[in-house]
Amino acid sequence: MKDKKRVYLFGDGKAEGNAKMKELLGGKGANLCEMNLIGVPVPPGFIITTEVCTEYNALGKEKVKKLIEAEVKNAVSVIEKSMGKKFNDLKNPLLLSVRSGSRVSMPGMMDTVLNLGLNDKTVEALAKKSGNERFAWDSYRRFIQMYGDVVMGMKPKSKEEHDPFEEILDEMKKSRKAKNDTELSVKDLKELVTKFKAMVKKRLKKDFPTDPWEQLYGAVYAVFESWMNDRAVYYRKLNGYPEEWGTAVSVQAMVFGNMGMTSATGVCFSRDAATGENIFNGEYLVNAQGEDVVAGIRTPLEITLEGSKRWAKLQGVDEKRRKKEFPSLEEVMPELYKILNETQKKLEKHYKDMQDMEFTIEDNKLWMLQTRNGKRTGASQVRIAMEMLKEKMIDEKTALMRVEPKKLDELLHPIFTTEALKKAKVITKGLPASPGAATGQIVFFAEDADKWSKDKKQVILVRIETSPEDLRGMHVSQGILTARGGMTSHAAVVARGMGKCCVSGAGNIAVDYKARTLTIGKKTYKEGDFISLNGSTGDVYEGKLATEDPKLSGDFAALMKLCDKHTKLGVRTNADTPKDSAVARSFGAQGIGLCRTEHMFFEGDRITPMREMILATDEAGRRKALAKLLPIQRKDFEGIFEAMKGLPVTVRLLDPPLHEFVPAEKKNQEELAKMLKIPAKQVAQRVDSLHEVNPMLGHRGCRLGITYPEITEMQTRAIIEAALNLKKKNIKACVEIMIPLIGTVTEFENQEKIIRDTAEKVFKEKKDKVDYLVGTMIEIPRACLIADQIAAKAEFFSFGTNDLTQMTFGYSRDDAGKFLPTYTDTKILPADPFQTIDQNGVGQLVEMAATKGKKARKTLKLGICGEHGGDPDSVVFCHKVGLTYVSCSPYRVPIARLAAAQAAIK
Amino acid sequence: MKDKKRVYLFGDGKAEGNAKMKELLGGKGANLCEMNLIGVPVPPGFIITTEVCTEYNALGKEKVKKLIEAEVKNAVSVIEKSMGKKFNDLKNPLLLSVRSGSRVSMPGMMDTVLNLGLNDKTVEALAKKSGNERFAWDSYRRFIQMYGDVVMGMKPKSKEEHDPFEEILDEMKKSRKAKNDTELSVKDLKELVTKFKAMVKKRLKKDFPTDPWEQLYGAVYAVFESWMNDRAVYYRKLNGYPEEWGTAVSVQAMVFGNMGMTSATGVCFSRDAATGENIFNGEYLVNAQGEDVVAGIRTPLEITLEGSKRWAKLQGVDEKRRKKEFPSLEEVMPELYKILNETQKKLEKHYKDMQDMEFTIEDNKLWMLQTRNGKRTGASQVRIAMEMLKEKMIDEKTALMRVEPKKLDELLHPIFTTEALKKAKVITKGLPASPGAATGQIVFFAEDADKWSKDKKQVILVRIETSPEDLRGMHVSQGILTARGGMTSHAAVVARGMGKCCVSGAGNIAVDYKARTLTIGKKTYKEGDFISLNGSTGDVYEGKLATEDPKLSGDFAALMKLCDKHTKLGVRTNADTPKDSAVARSFGAQGIGLCRTEHMFFEGDRITPMREMILATDEAGRRKALAKLLPIQRKDFEGIFEAMKGLPVTVRLLDPPLHEFVPAEKKNQEELAKMLKIPAKQVAQRVDSLHEVNPMLGHRGCRLGITYPEITEMQTRAIIEAALNLKKKNIKACVEIMIPLIGTVTEFENQEKIIRDTAEKVFKEKKDKVDYLVGTMIEIPRACLIADQIAAKAEFFSFGTNDLTQMTFGYSRDDAGKFLPTYTDTKILPADPFQTIDQNGVGQLVEMAATKGKKARKTLKLGICGEHGGDPDSVVFCHKVGLTYVSCSPYRVPIARLAAAQAAIK
Repeated sequence: MKDKKRVYLFGDGKAEGNAKMKELLGGKGANLCEMNLIGVPVPPGFIITTEVCTEYNALGKEKVKKLIEAEVKNAVSVIEKSMGKKFNDLKNPLLLSVRSGSRVSMPGMMDTVLNLGLNDKTVEALAKKSGNERFAWDSYRRFIQMYGDVVMGMKPKSKEEHDPFEEILDEMKKSRKAKNDTELSVKDLKELVTKFKAMVKKRLKKDFPTDPWEQLYGAVYAVFESWMNDRAVYYRKLNGYPEEWGTAVSVQAMVFGNMGMTSATGVCFSRDAATGENIFNGEYLVNAQGEDVVAGIRTPLEITLEGSKRWAKLQGVDEKRRKKEFPSLEEVMPELYKILNETQKKLEKHYKDMQDMEFTIEDNKLWMLQTRNGKRTGASQVRIAMEMLKEKMIDEKTALMRVEPKKLDELLHPIFTTEALKKAKVITKGLPASPGAATGQIVFFAEDADKWSKDKKQVILVRIETSPEDLRGMHVSQGILTARGGMTSHAAVVARGMGKCCVSGAGNIAVDYKARTLTIGKKTYKEGDFISLNGSTGDVYEGKLATEDPKLSGDFAALMKLCDKHTKLGVRTNADTPKDSAVARSFGAQGIGLCRTEHMFFEGDRITPMREMILATDEAGRRKALAKLLPIQRKDFEGIFEAMKGLPVTVRLLDPPLHEFVPAEKKNQEELAKMLKIPAKQVAQRVDSLHEVNPMLGHRGCRLGITYPEITEMQTRAIIEAALNLKKKNIKACVEIMIPLIGTVTEFENQEKIIRDTAEKVFKEKKDKVDYLVGTMIEIPRACLIADQIAAKAEFFSFGTNDLTQMTFGYSRDDAGKFLPTYTDTKILPADPFQTIDQNGVGQLVEMAATKGKKARKTLKLGICGEHGGDPDSVVFCHKVGLTYVSCSPYRVPIARLAAAQAAIK
Repeated sequence: MKDKKRVYLFGDGKAEGNAKMKELLGGKGANLCEMNLIGVPVPPGFIITTEVCTEYNALGKEKVKKLIEAEVKNAVSVIEKSMGKKFNDLKNPLLLSVRSGSRVSMPGMMDTVLNLGLNDKTVEALAKKSGNERFAWDSYRRFIQMYGDVVMGMKPKSKEEHDPFEEILDEMKKSRKAKNDTELSVKDLKELVTKFKAMVKKRLKKDFPTDPWEQLYGAVYAVFESWMNDRAVYYRKLNGYPEEWGTAVSVQAMVFGNMGMTSATGVCFSRDAATGENIFNGEYLVNAQGEDVVAGIRTPLEITLEGSKRWAKLQGVDEKRRKKEFPSLEEVMPELYKILNETQKKLEKHYKDMQDMEFTIEDNKLWMLQTRNGKRTGASQVRIAMEMLKEKMIDEKTALMRVEPKKLDELLHPIFTTEALKKAKVITKGLPASPGAATGQIVFFAEDADKWSKDKKQVILVRIETSPEDLRGMHVSQGILTARGGMTSHAAVVARGMGKCCVSGAGNIAVDYKARTLTIGKKTYKEGDFISLNGSTGDVYEGKLATEDPKLSGDFAALMKLCDKHTKLGVRTNADTPKDSAVARSFGAQGIGLCRTEHMFFEGDRITPMREMILATDEAGRRKALAKLLPIQRKDFEGIFEAMKGLPVTVRLLDPPLHEFVPAEKKNQEELAKMLKIPAKQVAQRVDSLHEVNPMLGHRGCRLGITYPEITEMQTRAIIEAALNLKKKNIKACVEIMIPLIGTVTEFENQEKIIRDTAEKVFKEKKDKVDYLVGTMIEIPRACLIADQIAAKAEFFSFGTNDLTQMTFGYSRDDAGKFLPTYTDTKILPADPFQTIDQNGVGQLVEMAATKGKKARKTLKLGICGEHGGDPDSVVFCHKVGLTYVSCSPYRVPIARLAAAQAAIK
């Protein structure tokens, strides 16, 4: 054991490791080595390997210290030589940083300890050497605080107490009437150090370590121990990471950007993170610490001259003033800027991705402290990926993998301007039900939305929950906000279909329809007040926020084209109107995977014959009303089939429980009674009789078609007649009739017979034929269990994973808001199963059904038409299980196409 | 093919077949042979084999006729010789009966054709020979009607028309002002024959066949064809019977009991079908046809002298009058009685079961027309089985198999007296939710039930549906009638637990709470009116009906003892109170499989702290209220553990959604607010916030314990403290703590940790320990899919097949009433899956979970505690799947024990 190498050195352009040694050195350590190897200046340091972590857990402190002591000592002396400073020196003391680093980043692991090596003596030396007493003592009190917290485990005593160090600090600031730490004097800081140490002694019954070596080993052990703390253990378990991986420890020389006017610090990006433009950019501060750039106490300046000029133009600052007050690094330190610019180019070229870098200039010397692949907006992801592809920096597959599918959302919907967001005040948060940005005046009723929008007002419809009666009002609103209902509630599903912004289930808003107010906490908003919604994050803002429409660039089109080149899985859309169908086609949908016929019944006056049908007391009455609906539906289908021009269209027969079509409110019931010339009491009674305790598990889906076969007959006739009419016009309709909510093969047989008989009848009448398929939605657990039996009859399956998730988990999507947040917060569930398919449970059923189905019928088409069809992780699952296609709302089609391509590449 | 034997003869004590040849001769044919072989006089006849049926379907009429013609001709001549009559004879014509008979009885198959061989000529001969012209012509018109219907396929023309023959008959009766057929004259009958034949000619464009041979072959072919009709095909498919089985045809000589005073006819039983008493009994009529005994036109008389005397005593008829007007067969035809008595003894001995027989005496000769195992009451089944066992007629296993488990219900609950039922008027029908008979005055509110019962009135609580608030009212009522809700609705489940009669989901009753009326069709019943309920059939009667308590005989106890000797599956009970526990123990329950803790919260004033807990706005408030519930629950558990004396008790933690505990009505909310000294609006808001769209899939089960861990803590503490308290008294408590509604292993881990931590805490406090298990209810489809993961943590599984069925099918038990009847009527479902477990779907999940669970933990206990635990078919399934025990409501324990024993024997 003694012979094994346990400590890896790096610095001065040399390194004992490299980027490929993440398992041994951790991700951070491996990259520190790599930067050295490619000649980027990095403060020298060393890495204690992940293997030592395992030894630590097996052997304990003392034994491990013996194993690494010599190597550590040697490593520190190498750093000392490199930096020309000495650890624990009373003239020019070397300070160190200690960080953890396993092969993947992991919550719960120890944070950074900076300024390690300070004590009552070295602090004086630092003060002298830097000529900045305040800097030295502030670094010292920060060190005690950081070390005390993360290494010594100083915890709040009770729930009432905050961090014990912060309490002392707050007290001090209060007595000094200081708002910021920076207003404290050197004397104050010295007093703080004394008080901090006293507190440590009092709480832990031991002194704060003054020996830098003891400090160093303490920090190293703390890193190892954090590998075994509850949060890390839990996280590993959740992700299936083995304990044996262990964590490495990186120790580096501290460098300071606040050592005078020849020092600086900053962050920079190799390309524009917002737009993706290939332009170097970033901010810096002279004589400052990294924290200062972020904290906003001083305004950081632009690094490049070009950036500085752009900034000045936006801010209305003239060139003279700019040059004087806001000069760029390029102007202030032209030589160092040149080195920095070369370094960023080198790093991007080496890592073949846009880099997000931190640097410090200590006394005219540039040190890179960190480089990593930069986070960026969706637009930026697309542009950078496609431009790097053109630059031949990366290949097609890499370009595809560089764009996060979910981020495409940002490109397809209005967004708030960056300026607007800076000033915005978040007043509450709901579920990000349908993406986009919306701003408008609050209205509480669909009729008002209609009226106000006719007066050219932009409105946000705020409801406790929406119902089909609100459809028209939703259509004219900028966005929808609901207090109840999940990601697949009525509001959410309809809004996504419309491509309209929606925040649903904002649990802590109180809507008072009578008073026409919306209350959040103690603040009440009235009808007419402005609010704004971010449907991509769930944020709700006060007031009017400026929005802008994103423009679909050529890069986007090129990306989509690239997707189709690499994909195996088809992408269809869920669409109920010719308009939606056209939108989806424009996004590249290869057909309609779910056409919900019931949505057609709400538009305009169609609801009246639908209600007449529901209120009829016998079959004859129902048939009479259905006869009125027939030509309407036929025309709808003609429009959709025409829009899809020969691409397959899966039409689902009537699915929702009938109560959704009848008015719930007395006033509306009375109006309806008048219109149908029947007693109001009869309407009320029928509505009452339609009430269900659990409508989700009630009289709906094929259960309707079985109890009222005439509905299935009418719908089949409308579909088949529409297809025949188009055939006359030489337009091919590729029809797939889908029976919803099948749980037994006998249900399927019952409905299939009605469909086939009706189709044959129409063929005879019209003396012509069209091909069509009859298949079913697989959305009930039982259907998965007997999928072989069903597939013997059905020509296709389409997984309705919304309902399947509801029934497999026993979660009502409308009610789960009461416990799902707790579940995802406490990791009882890794994710909301309505957003990302639960592969372990629901996925097992899908896979079982796919396998059984394929066994019984080799040609079985398999699709998915739940909301999961537009979720990237779920698309990957669908690819793995071998589905034929996924289907999602029109605006999610590009996302699904990209996810599908990525799945194929993986 | 020509050489094969296709026709089997029987008669005169000889037969070419026997009882074992059911596959070739059908059940009926085989038994006709058998009776001959054991010397019982049976009208001679022959059987055309099932193989001929298959040939018929392959070859058609003509070819089959050639194959059987010679054998049939020969067979008829044998019958002719035996009977001394001749087929198609003009002096003494032989008439035949033709019946179908496959190896199992099957709906849709052809009925009987009697009197075959009659035409305009033979009818005259029959009239002459019998000296009874009316008899001859009535037989003839019946023959045409029967033959026309079943052989020639005369069907009603439209929905408005009834049977076309009946229409003519009704017209004739109307014009003759005759109420009964018997009032028609010979002339009328002759005219009917003419009209019937004309109708056949008009409808079918062919004459009614006059040639007896043509009639015979027509009937035979009709039997074969009925094998392929839709109903029979469907039934076979449903039961998995192959088409190849085919049906046989039995042809027999007709005999007549109405040929004068030396003729008679009757039905008889070898033991008493109602009580099981070992006494020969039955009824007869001199000079009558079989139909007359059944039709009730003449009052049939007792066969035995003893029976006749008993009857006279009951009717208050003195011996003199009895002898004259109502003599027994034993007195009237002593010689023939003796033969009959010997015959019945012989048949019972031969078939080793109680026989239900039909006989005809034609001119002083006894013919047995049929014998079969007799249908009997539950009490009779038990007595006969146990007495035959004592008589060594049958062995233990056979005795056990002779009792239908479901019939035991009759022995355990009050029943209506036979006299009461004779006069009873059924006014509607609901679901047989909880067995028993109840009679009382209608009340509509639980409070009234309470008040009225205090005034010594017997009441029936009539509700649209019940809620936990009605518990006390249900308790004091004789029975419960609800308009909504299925077999597992609140009313049904609670009533079964109480052993109280309940008819639920009587869909066509209208309850008007305001008017306090119950309307069925056009009739309205008021509060205070008497109605009666039969919870075993679902019948609702008008008025007061006498009931009687069944007495549990020694035979019952002996049967139960026998069960345990042969059973492998344990039987536990679902019980929530010491009283229920004691009842269940007395019925032989081996533990409690499901103790629903929530029921405890409703009794008395306990609901108040429960509501206080729900209304609390923070954890501290909830803990305060829970502290009040703790001593109450602890005491409850002590009572239950004590009652079960060391038998295992599975306690389920709080399961139902919280809204079930809070008052829904405004008035009650206000009262509660007053009691808790909080604003009424706060109560209303909280109740409103608890509202759920699909409560079944909402915030309940372990989801409560996870969001409010303090509830789990309190319940665990109550359980463990109760067990420790009993330990001090030297009473062992065998505790199994069950976490409800587990869908993920993380949920289980979360709750298990709270339970184990709390238990450890209590152990420390009390300085003592008890053993306990922690397991879970498996009632969510996902739990079955990941059962291996769960079993790695859980010590037992209890299948909650009610909820599992709801979620696997996607049926809400409270709403399925809207389509389930259609589903079971049209055989889309073979049975209500809430009554009998769906082996194909839900069963697949149960089996999967059992297998996966056992794999992960060999010692895993497996139980079932859904309502299926008391359903015999489901018990058989549980046995097959290898469960450890079933658990059911106390009154179902004997049923489950018997079903379990039968499952082991099978």
